Amino acid sequence: MFETAELGRKVSRREFKAQVPQLRTELLELQQELRSAGFSVIVLFAGVDGAGKSETVNILNEWMDPRGLLTRAFDPPTPEEQERPPFWRYWLALPPKGRIGLYLSSWYSQPLVDLVYGEIDQATFDQSLNRITTFEKELADDGTLVLKFWMHLGRKAQKQRLDALEKDPLTRWRVTKREKRHQKMYEAFEAVADRLLHKTNTGETPWYIVEGADHNYRTLALATLLRDAIRRHLERRAAAGGEKPPAKQGVRIEVRPSHTVLSRLDMSQKVARAEYDLLLEKYQGKLHLLTREAKARQLSTILVFEGVDAAGKGGAIHRLTGAMDARLYQVIPIAAPTDEERAQHYLWRFWRHLPRAGRVTIFDRSWYGRVLVERVEGFADDAAWRRAYAEINDFEEQLIEHGAVLVKYWAHITKEEQLRRFESRQQTPYKSYKLTPEDWRNREKWDLYEQAVNDMVAYTSTNFAPWTLVEGNNKYFARLKVLRVLCERLSAVLNQD
Amino acid sequence: MFETAELGRKVSRREFKAQVPQLRTELLELQQELRSAGFSVIVLFAGVDGAGKSETVNILNEWMDPRGLLTRAFDPPTPEEQERPPFWRYWLALPPKGRIGLYLSSWYSQPLVDLVYGEIDQATFDQSLNRITTFEKELADDGTLVLKFWMHLGRKAQKQRLDALEKDPLTRWRVTKREKRHQKMYEAFEAVADRLLHKTNTGETPWYIVEGADHNYRTLALATLLRDAIRRHLERRAAAGGEKPPAKQGVRIEVRPSHTVLSRLDMSQKVARAEYDLLLEKYQGKLHLLTREAKARQLSTILVFEGVDAAGKGGAIHRLTGAMDARLYQVIPIAAPTDEERAQHYLWRFWRHLPRAGRVTIFDRSWYGRVLVERVEGFADDAAWRRAYAEINDFEEQLIEHGAVLVKYWAHITKEEQLRRFESRQQTPYKSYKLTPEDWRNREKWDLYEQAVNDMVAYTSTNFAPWTLVEGNNKYFARLKVLRVLCERLSAVLNQD
Repeated sequence: MFETAELGRKVSRREFKAQVPQLRTELLELQQELRSAGFSVIVLFAGVDGAGKSETVNILNEWMDPRGLLTRAFDPPTPEEQERPPFWRYWLALPPKGRIGLYLSSWYSQPLVDLVYGEIDQATFDQSLNRITTFEKELADDGTLVLKFWMHLGRKAQKQRLDALEKDPLTRWRVTKREKRHQKMYEAFEAVADRLLHKTNTGETPWYIVEGADHNYRTLALATLLRDAIRRHLERRAAAGGEKPPAKQGVRIEVRPSHTVLSRLDMSQKVARAEYDLLLEKYQGKLHLLTREAKARQLSTILVFEGVDAAGKGGAIHRLTGAMDARLYQVIPIAAPTDEERAQHYLWRFWRHLPRAGRVTIFDRSWYGRVLVERVEGFADDAAWRRAYAEINDFEEQLIEHGAVLVKYWAHITKEEQLRRFESRQQTPYKSYKLTPEDWRNREKWDLYEQAVNDMVAYTSTNFAPWTLVEGNNKYFARLKVLRVLCERLSAVLNQD
Repeated sequence: MFETAELGRKVSRREFKAQVPQLRTELLELQQELRSAGFSVIVLFAGVDGAGKSETVNILNEWMDPRGLLTRAFDPPTPEEQERPPFWRYWLALPPKGRIGLYLSSWYSQPLVDLVYGEIDQATFDQSLNRITTFEKELADDGTLVLKFWMHLGRKAQKQRLDALEKDPLTRWRVTKREKRHQKMYEAFEAVADRLLHKTNTGETPWYIVEGADHNYRTLALATLLRDAIRRHLERRAAAGGEKPPAKQGVRIEVRPSHTVLSRLDMSQKVARAEYDLLLEKYQGKLHLLTREAKARQLSTILVFEGVDAAGKGGAIHRLTGAMDARLYQVIPIAAPTDEERAQHYLWRFWRHLPRAGRVTIFDRSWYGRVLVERVEGFADDAAWRRAYAEINDFEEQLIEHGAVLVKYWAHITKEEQLRRFESRQQTPYKSYKLTPEDWRNREKWDLYEQAVNDMVAYTSTNFAPWTLVEGNNKYFARLKVLRVLCERLSAVLNQD
């Protein structure tokens, strides 16, 4: 879930200064429009200590009209609050229509900390999250725009940040024993946060994960996300009410992610042919034994292959199936849906192909089409692909709960390498069938796809079903990585029992 | 939850025969429209054994075009099904777009039986229900119309029905040991069903509770509900797509409820003045002690008064407050919301008035305005008041979980008695301020209000917060009942600990 928030994104001081005036003006104008728009905005800040939650709230208070803002933080409940049901204080603190509430801590804080400290069990935690989603849904149904920001820092970045705060006499007070204790519990917090985010990431009230390490980046990212969400909500409500959407003011500033999770891959990794031959045999042999053992133990395996065109998905799949008993696996290539499939929910055609116990199903492309091609090409509307993250997590959680092994691969190559491969396909008669005009069209949308992949990883790389990104410029390296990861996952599960 | 489904509603053979041809035609026409409408319909039948689930499905199969129908029942999972996650078989059994799936048992059956038999605990049960609501929401988001019918029989009616089935050699096979065992566990099933219904009664996929005792009534009720729901869904989707809604065919048959939960009250109950004076003193004394004890024990009490105009709510409230220490209670009269309240979610103004520990808050009218006056007068749109049942149950459940006592009164008088009281108010100078033109207008909508009250009781009289219907034609009787019920509830909770 947090891979996309540890990319070291930065915005220079110069760029920051250049963008702020325009952004402030836009935010102020939106606040004006909001006043008479008949809905309120709730902005939650949650996340890792030191990721800039309170700094950002301070900046927003400085940039925007404070008369339209309401800033809240919730301490542990007072005795007076404890005399009412837990949500009483949250209800009373809601912003009225036309105003924006900024919440420095919220209904998420208590369950998160309680589970990390072991004061509640996971079932109770899940119950709390259900109460929260019900609460947020009631607000959303009432027209409220609920924005949830998860401000993230990697473990190392957090340490640096807290050290820096502590060294400065002006900020030393902010690093208390509590912060230090929590820093040591980083992994525990991250695991609980992962569950919290995917359980409450609904279509109506999604989470936005923001990298918190760089002040300028996180401030611009957050302010533009806020601006765009409010604008979208105004437009949507105007459209639903049959009104003309308000004219868009000025130029939109976009915080172009200078990095995505893909741009951080080390694409130079390679394996020499001789080593490849050796290792291929080793891993294939291992996989053969593991899949037989899995069959005997009734352990199902589900593999998902997604990737850039010409990144070598097919080749990697061949190396897997080559190692397995043909009765054990099925490869399901996913192209355009059949008539029968089109008449069903988009997840239906994947449900139908789930393997029996002990078998392996390999999806060559998958349910992720919803948030990749369908998003980029506009086949699924905005609401549909946004809520798909939650639907997919729920689907995959059911697979895991049932005891299946699920491995998801994103096969990646650089844009240059893709061009090289396309041209080679064009020139090689027996390969040219593989290259279609659609491949060239997709290539033109490279940046849009890269953004979609980044979001996909952000929202669906859960603890229970993480993504494996495969650096594919060197085919040998890629195939071995695919094999190795599968062997590791199978061994881990088979040895666990 | 089931009060409205034990009213002994009946439709005569003659009326049944008169209505069926038109209804069949309408259903067939809707099936035609549905074919190209781009969504599927799921009709779940759940409920009490013997309430006519399978008979109704048979009739629908007879009346409608079987090519557009898909009938399913789920036995315990087969070994092959057990090899996949539990929802696999439900996914595969979904009807394609344009068709109607009739489900004689469903995803609800297993959790229901498992909890009754004690094979799972309540937390696990709630988790299952969450998975179900997520599943149904995904379908609804995809455009599917999900209709859930709970077919109900009272305990006595069930016994009669099963006895009759058993006597007839042709149907004897249907009464197995399982049915007989379940019959003895009636209360346990009812308690679990109550929880199941209110936890899964969402705005998008609500439950319809149908009284199952009379074949003709239940058949007509169900077929008209089905027809109206499909028609509404077609219209809604056409409107959302900017198309003109399809012309309505023919006359709509309405199954006018010959009874509501109100029409079954014994309105002739009365208490003589002398007895009243005696009992009033007794109950008031008791209440005084109980509220002091509640204060000492930090037990909060929340009372809700709703009722027909002039049914004596005010008088009853006086008799309560007269018995209490003035520092202990607060009466909150609910009229039109203030500006500040209007700028918030409709539940906000009730949250803000929740009592501190040990105190009593009396709401003179309440959050039920949403499903009464706002529904009848059209202040809340269809979707808003329909989802309010779930919102209200969730709100009240939080009060109960927090440990508060909640008593909800509906004060009722007959239409004749209301007229008498209105006229008396008109003629008595010091009472005439109580009578407004609005009271007369509301009176004209008597039937609509009665229907709204019936639905309100059906959906919000939960095990944890049941409604108390107060027969108010005789004021003495009504006031004593209000006092007595409150004393009983407080005693029960205070003695429990």
